[in-house]
Amino acid sequence: MINDEFYMDLALNNAKAMKGQTDPNPLVGSVIVNDNRIVGVGTHLKAGEPHAEIHALRMAGEKAKGATIYVTLEPCSHHGRTGPCAEAIVKAGIKKAVIATLDPNPIVAGNGVKILKDAGIEVKVGVRAKESNKMNEVFNKYITEQKPFITLKAGITLDGKVATHTFSSKWITSKESREDVHQLRSENMAILVGIHTALKDDPALTSRIPNGRNPLRIVMDSRLRLPLNYQLVTDKQAPTWIFTSKNYDKEKKKQLEELGVRVIVTKSENSVDPIEVVNTLGKKGISSLIIEGGGNIHASFLKKKLVDKVILYIAPKLVGGKDAPTFLEGKGIELMKDAIELTDTGITTIGNDFKFIGYPSFK
Amino acid sequence: MINDEFYMDLALNNAKAMKGQTDPNPLVGSVIVNDNRIVGVGTHLKAGEPHAEIHALRMAGEKAKGATIYVTLEPCSHHGRTGPCAEAIVKAGIKKAVIATLDPNPIVAGNGVKILKDAGIEVKVGVRAKESNKMNEVFNKYITEQKPFITLKAGITLDGKVATHTFSSKWITSKESREDVHQLRSENMAILVGIHTALKDDPALTSRIPNGRNPLRIVMDSRLRLPLNYQLVTDKQAPTWIFTSKNYDKEKKKQLEELGVRVIVTKSENSVDPIEVVNTLGKKGISSLIIEGGGNIHASFLKKKLVDKVILYIAPKLVGGKDAPTFLEGKGIELMKDAIELTDTGITTIGNDFKFIGYPSFK
Repeated sequence: MINDEFYMDLALNNAKAMKGQTDPNPLVGSVIVNDNRIVGVGTHLKAGEPHAEIHALRMAGEKAKGATIYVTLEPCSHHGRTGPCAEAIVKAGIKKAVIATLDPNPIVAGNGVKILKDAGIEVKVGVRAKESNKMNEVFNKYITEQKPFITLKAGITLDGKVATHTFSSKWITSKESREDVHQLRSENMAILVGIHTALKDDPALTSRIPNGRNPLRIVMDSRLRLPLNYQLVTDKQAPTWIFTSKNYDKEKKKQLEELGVRVIVTKSENSVDPIEVVNTLGKKGISSLIIEGGGNIHASFLKKKLVDKVILYIAPKLVGGKDAPTFLEGKGIELMKDAIELTDTGITTIGNDFKFIGYPSFK
Repeated sequence: MINDEFYMDLALNNAKAMKGQTDPNPLVGSVIVNDNRIVGVGTHLKAGEPHAEIHALRMAGEKAKGATIYVTLEPCSHHGRTGPCAEAIVKAGIKKAVIATLDPNPIVAGNGVKILKDAGIEVKVGVRAKESNKMNEVFNKYITEQKPFITLKAGITLDGKVATHTFSSKWITSKESREDVHQLRSENMAILVGIHTALKDDPALTSRIPNGRNPLRIVMDSRLRLPLNYQLVTDKQAPTWIFTSKNYDKEKKKQLEELGVRVIVTKSENSVDPIEVVNTLGKKGISSLIIEGGGNIHASFLKKKLVDKVILYIAPKLVGGKDAPTFLEGKGIELMKDAIELTDTGITTIGNDFKFIGYPSFK
């Protein structure tokens, strides 16, 4: 059926195709329709280049007059490198604007719509709002809170284990799942592990796919136990930052720094507070962070309500074991009724495994 | 596309619709096709009544001559209450027979096909074999091994837990999942729990759905600790059998028996061997058994390779906790490469939850 949703879906699809190439700008798409014919299609390609609406208006040319414009995000009202889109829309003679979501930045939200309405343009907001918000979930979180969007990722067995009771863990998931993890790493600005995982696996935490971008590597290591000959210190594939406690080993800090590792001393006495880590990363411009465990790190981030999204690769296998580690340890919730519910959930198959995505809704 | 699979699917669908009403016979469907037109459709409705082929042949009448018959199971060769179907097919003048699977009973498998072939009928075996076998998975297991088909069922959180560290467990799954469990109970001849689960929950283990059939209730209780005032002893909703060890409490046995509970003393000194339980149930005509935990019972049945099917209701919630019980405890597998793989897996949504089905493939 040809309706507002149809055109907005086209705009969303074009926007999504640019994933990864618009940073630090959001993904935005636009479609212009005149007399039931599409006369313009635009999408934001790259920061510094025209916004989606401008591309669509250029394509439409004279046919923009009297037309309806669909935009996945409220047109901007500020005089930036590409001028305020709202004014361009007014100038082009657009009659109606259909917008998925207002600007997530509370300081400017509604300003673009006001310009349009003041010029007599009919404005409809909210068509495919959920899809548009999800498409820019990282951008929206960072622009509103100046903190990274945090994804907790784990590969688990059907019985929730990340290893056997002997700590054997290779491999839980299929090749396809592991490739997907490398894609995830490539899409996140930073990756974080606890010192237990670092000591156990000597991981590289790089994105081993063609054209993969390596994330900044972060280790929570309250006593600076990361060995100097480990990959995170020696391989130079990406920067490594260690967050440590006030009680760190001064000599080890010097050695790590000499090898190029950045050591950040936090305010806690003997541990590292995940809230401080997240706030610090936000201030340093890190807008997305993926956490790859282990179970105690996951528990500490969830306890502090810091997790935005959970991705689990569930392998259809069973290992059992009362002492086999699960992906979520710590002390845990007291009562089942207080369990952390995940919303907007979905499961797809990937290789032999299932990929689960959900969003924690903290009480 | 109209092909052998098309007609066999029709036969399978008709057969499946009779689920639960053909016991102890298998589900069977049949379709007869003459000159590209369906001229007969049949399905086995009830033990003692005609087999699927006979119904289909009656519907086809004279049009069976020169036709192709599709049957989901090899036509029988024995003179039972409804005569050998293979001979009826020959008599009707059928030209070709397409069969999903041979008779699962190794003693008679192939006999029906032989009668058909000896009469000059062209025979094709194996179309939709997997679907036909799965449809009669319980029947096939029991007819070949005289042991119940065993389903392990659990309701778990996404992190594999069946309760919090304080053993709070109400409710993990949604209303829809719990209703589905009552349907499952209704479809199984017996249900089994360990004494820990019985003591903790005082469960009724009945099927609380309209027209639900209550399964026989079985408790593995090596020291006869089940309290006399518990529902399994007092509610008279269904028989309760307790399997105990040689070291049972004689006085308690008498008390339980006076209240109508059957106590079966096994050969083990201080425990109850699941293999002995399963063999005994098989000998007593129990063809299907559902196991509802807890984690140690599940582990013991899996360790002895006794589980045919795993059904998990996975609630999209997290509780965490190193000491929170998971649905699969015990000692567990040593190495990840030796994990029990589940094959033929599938996940569907049910209410807010996911329902997983898989079949353990033991090495």
